[in-house]
Amino acid sequence: MHRVAVLGASGFAGALCAHLVDRHPRLELAAVTARADAGRRLDHLYPRYRVRRELESFDADAVAERADAALVAYPHGAAAPVVEALRARGLKVADLSADFRLSRSAYERYYQPHEAPALLDDAVYGLTEAHRDAVRAADLVAVPGCYPTAALLALLPLRDTLADAIVDAKSGVSGAGREATETTHFVAADENVNAYKVEGHRHRAELEQELATERITFTPHLVPLDQGLLASCYVTTADELTRDELDERFRDAYAGEPFVEVADAPPGVKDVRDTNICRVYPTVEPATGRVIVFAAIDNLWKGAAGQAVQDLNLMLGLDERDGLA
Amino acid sequence: MHRVAVLGASGFAGALCAHLVDRHPRLELAAVTARADAGRRLDHLYPRYRVRRELESFDADAVAERADAALVAYPHGAAAPVVEALRARGLKVADLSADFRLSRSAYERYYQPHEAPALLDDAVYGLTEAHRDAVRAADLVAVPGCYPTAALLALLPLRDTLADAIVDAKSGVSGAGREATETTHFVAADENVNAYKVEGHRHRAELEQELATERITFTPHLVPLDQGLLASCYVTTADELTRDELDERFRDAYAGEPFVEVADAPPGVKDVRDTNICRVYPTVEPATGRVIVFAAIDNLWKGAAGQAVQDLNLMLGLDERDGLA
Amino acid sequence: MHRVAVLGASGFAGALCAHLVDRHPRLELAAVTARADAGRRLDHLYPRYRVRRELESFDADAVAERADAALVAYPHGAAAPVVEALRARGLKVADLSADFRLSRSAYERYYQPHEAPALLDDAVYGLTEAHRDAVRAADLVAVPGCYPTAALLALLPLRDTLADAIVDAKSGVSGAGREATETTHFVAADENVNAYKVEGHRHRAELEQELATERITFTPHLVPLDQGLLASCYVTTADELTRDELDERFRDAYAGEPFVEVADAPPGVKDVRDTNICRVYPTVEPATGRVIVFAAIDNLWKGAAGQAVQDLNLMLGLDERDGLA
Amino acid sequence: MHRVAVLGASGFAGALCAHLVDRHPRLELAAVTARADAGRRLDHLYPRYRVRRELESFDADAVAERADAALVAYPHGAAAPVVEALRARGLKVADLSADFRLSRSAYERYYQPHEAPALLDDAVYGLTEAHRDAVRAADLVAVPGCYPTAALLALLPLRDTLADAIVDAKSGVSGAGREATETTHFVAADENVNAYKVEGHRHRAELEQELATERITFTPHLVPLDQGLLASCYVTTADELTRDELDERFRDAYAGEPFVEVADAPPGVKDVRDTNICRVYPTVEPATGRVIVFAAIDNLWKGAAGQAVQDLNLMLGLDERDGLA
Repeated sequence: MHRVAVLGASGFAGALCAHLVDRHPRLELAAVTARADAGRRLDHLYPRYRVRRELESFDADAVAERADAALVAYPHGAAAPVVEALRARGLKVADLSADFRLSRSAYERYYQPHEAPALLDDAVYGLTEAHRDAVRAADLVAVPGCYPTAALLALLPLRDTLADAIVDAKSGVSGAGREATETTHFVAADENVNAYKVEGHRHRAELEQELATERITFTPHLVPLDQGLLASCYVTTADELTRDELDERFRDAYAGEPFVEVADAPPGVKDVRDTNICRVYPTVEPATGRVIVFAAIDNLWKGAAGQAVQDLNLMLGLDERDGLA
Repeated sequence: MHRVAVLGASGFAGALCAHLVDRHPRLELAAVTARADAGRRLDHLYPRYRVRRELESFDADAVAERADAALVAYPHGAAAPVVEALRARGLKVADLSADFRLSRSAYERYYQPHEAPALLDDAVYGLTEAHRDAVRAADLVAVPGCYPTAALLALLPLRDTLADAIVDAKSGVSGAGREATETTHFVAADENVNAYKVEGHRHRAELEQELATERITFTPHLVPLDQGLLASCYVTTADELTRDELDERFRDAYAGEPFVEVADAPPGVKDVRDTNICRVYPTVEPATGRVIVFAAIDNLWKGAAGQAVQDLNLMLGLDERDGLA
Repeated sequence: MHRVAVLGASGFAGALCAHLVDRHPRLELAAVTARADAGRRLDHLYPRYRVRRELESFDADAVAERADAALVAYPHGAAAPVVEALRARGLKVADLSADFRLSRSAYERYYQPHEAPALLDDAVYGLTEAHRDAVRAADLVAVPGCYPTAALLALLPLRDTLADAIVDAKSGVSGAGREATETTHFVAADENVNAYKVEGHRHRAELEQELATERITFTPHLVPLDQGLLASCYVTTADELTRDELDERFRDAYAGEPFVEVADAPPGVKDVRDTNICRVYPTVEPATGRVIVFAAIDNLWKGAAGQAVQDLNLMLGLDERDGLA
Repeated sequence: MHRVAVLGASGFAGALCAHLVDRHPRLELAAVTARADAGRRLDHLYPRYRVRRELESFDADAVAERADAALVAYPHGAAAPVVEALRARGLKVADLSADFRLSRSAYERYYQPHEAPALLDDAVYGLTEAHRDAVRAADLVAVPGCYPTAALLALLPLRDTLADAIVDAKSGVSGAGREATETTHFVAADENVNAYKVEGHRHRAELEQELATERITFTPHLVPLDQGLLASCYVTTADELTRDELDERFRDAYAGEPFVEVADAPPGVKDVRDTNICRVYPTVEPATGRVIVFAAIDNLWKGAAGQAVQDLNLMLGLDERDGLA
């Protein structure tokens, strides 16, 4: 049994991390910490996860004494110093923030000055399907953002021929986080759909990096549901592809992948709810020949906590599917 | 044209008040004020109401100069001093808070020390169907709470024979107000139903007062929808009533009422959404002889802003239906 | 008062037509007919519309005797013969089906053999903002589909420079019609989002016709809400446009339009619910220079019944806004 | 491994039965049958369950050859003959219909003539918490209805002092079954709440039987969510109970129960979604002394398929929790 601490366990992604570790056959939940909610019980905040533990304040030494590894679910900026403290004490870390996903220059262009740049060289971008071997060897993994996870799984099989891509993404409200705001109020989101941050959402930095192109339009939308994210990707390819070639390309790319399904019809986010699965469907619009790829994930699972556990499994030498079936 | 100010127009009920006054054929929207959101435009906060006005800070003299009457949509406690200031300047006021609904003793038992007790004698409880003449003659009307409005319209026709009543009420999330909290977060309310304040919700004070009995159980529930409130009322009557007698009693009670419909089947809250209508359905359970009455309203309309305008219409000598059709 | 019959009044769009005519200050609801639900009362099927009328079977002579004009809300194919019968008896007709929206060849390519081709020459495509004068002069107007209405209002101001457009559209479930199917079951749509008919939805025919290009990708999605439609349009323009030029182009195009709002931020479908308004927001993505235009409508109002009444108002010489405010 | 057939696997409860058996560590899914959907693949109908099997037509001999036990998820009336055929061939059966829940006289009063009355003597009412030993010894178990499951778990600890009970129940739409109807249409249920069958829902027969009283009022309501059921029970007790006595009574009654949680606050249905857990909260309303008990379940799990597997586990000598954690 590996001992794992979950930091930031009072947020949506962190709480699910705690739940997944708690029920994991090879992991032991060593500690759960929170910044604002220390002292509250996790099963009072999230009855459905049934993690009967009290949230503690973070103390690096105390965590290091009890845990061999950590899942860090802090907001960007707040994560870096905590990760640094844990790495200095030898813990393996899968970090769910944006702090270790990008090069320093890209990070500082999209976010803010980086607080632990020395760690960036060792950090691995944790999209398992793209970087499995590196994740396996890593001590620090940056878990991808929810939007990039879906979009990249839709686009990576086309990377060598990608001329231009438009990613129209629809996310459930849990993707906006636990903070109660005008945007996350039930009355604002219910019976509504709208785009937001259309002049530039920071997740595009991950798309540019992993696809090695700037020809990407990315528009997030909020849809009135809890968990789920659908990326509808409109692709201009350098080579003309028939639908059969496209299908074969995706089936080849994802053969043997435990958490990617190539579907026969457009996926719904309900098909993957509460799973770590990404369901993709590539097609060609007959009238225009345009390639369209849909990818559906659960933003809290494959888009955050599930993928974090998948990464951690590999980092710890376990089967990547452990605790996620 | 009567000039009407709306105070507290940035909340859900206040914003709808502003909208209803703005499109009212006999009223002119003289001013909109807000405590925290002064300086913001109302049509930016609530695009769908299309009230293209800037929210101002409250100043009693400035309001009194521009308005003959006011709708006050402040939280309880905050309303009383403002109402007092407006009444002192001669404005007629319909107040949506709890501050003038109850006797002083009841108010202070359920809420807090009263800040303007001298006004209580003149205040009229504005359930039009029960107190129409008094409302017509009043300068200060206390608009009933959303839960009591539905429950009273279900129970008042049985008041003379009411031995005991259980009110199981289901409210949409807009009833919890505009404040962003753990409870009003989309993720908390979506796909959920739960009771709350089961050991005592303050709206029961209004039921006790208007029904003149303490034999009332009242349990509010939150349901995952925006606007709408259903009260399911289980009644023990002193006299045995057949279903026909019951139906006749309700049809007599509400004959000629412009905003109460006696239905032929259990009402859904969608039947009354965005209307000032209360739809009631009384029946007798065959197996037990128990009287059950359902009442559906839109909590923001008949349960708040719509009823406030209905009251104000009467206070100003207008047709009670003006601006509400 | 003009006497208006509504045919197919038991469907979602037809029922709203009946409601709008019923409360219209210059129209009189002469008859409501239905194919399968004749004999049922419209206010039992749709309590919220409060049209206390019994649905009749259709008889052309009976309708012609009582009505001067008709709104026809039949499915495509079923509408054409009924429209023909009414036109032969001199009634002005606004038809909500696809039967008179397209040229014969386009219609027969996308739908089926046309049953009343002789009428096609006189039919006007009823997007008021594009064809107002023709609608005013017409005896037969084809009310546009819900998807084309939103997409065209987003794209027409760019028509002269439009090189390529992708329309990613999200529709509430009422857009799928009243028929109870696997798709419209609550459990299928709730907490779900998915694309459908991605290899070719027939509404694209209207886009091709009105934009005079085949360079259009159109992908409809179903989102878990009742009424509302958002079209997110990604446009390649022949000329490079700055955001200011874009904004000016839209403000010029829609200056004076009673039912189009050019917004300052991405519109939500809730902003236009239960209104005949289309709210558009054009912008330029800074990173790529790509033009993006969002358009939100209520699919049952501006996307169907509201636009039908808008058309009929013009056909009858009334103010286009009558009964729609 | 026990070989289990699931009959009626195309319905909501049946499909979940198939999923639970398929992933069960001690059961093997021997066959899935359906009446109308034979030939379709279960993972096409229900992608999220990932049961990659083709639905077959039912043939008793074929099923008996491949299976030792069966879960039958047919509608009432249709289940009895199928259960009879399987029992005649020696299979153990857990039946999810109403056909074996009641005495013959009660069944025929509430439903229809019974088609396999000879089996009634051996059938056990499968509320494990009330009849565990009998379930363990049974060859035929009748899985309780969803409403009775929640209501009985709320009321059974009070059975010896129960004078009168009102059950106000709120169910998600999956409880209405997979059939597409006016009621289950998304547009009908979304943003709505209403009571139905208020003059007598057949599930009351189970309450009368298990509580041994007719002093029960039962009113089901439909709420706009997928899976979840909340029973709010208002109880008149023969003995006066303090809140502490009440709490103790429930904690005693459910000590050691693997699937009942006695909560510290009113449960939400989201707390138990996708689990076999019933979460109960008993309290006393201070103002009236009335006992109120809330019970939340997932209607498809503890209210149907989960409870069926719980029953089957016991019938087969397994741990009752197997495959349900």
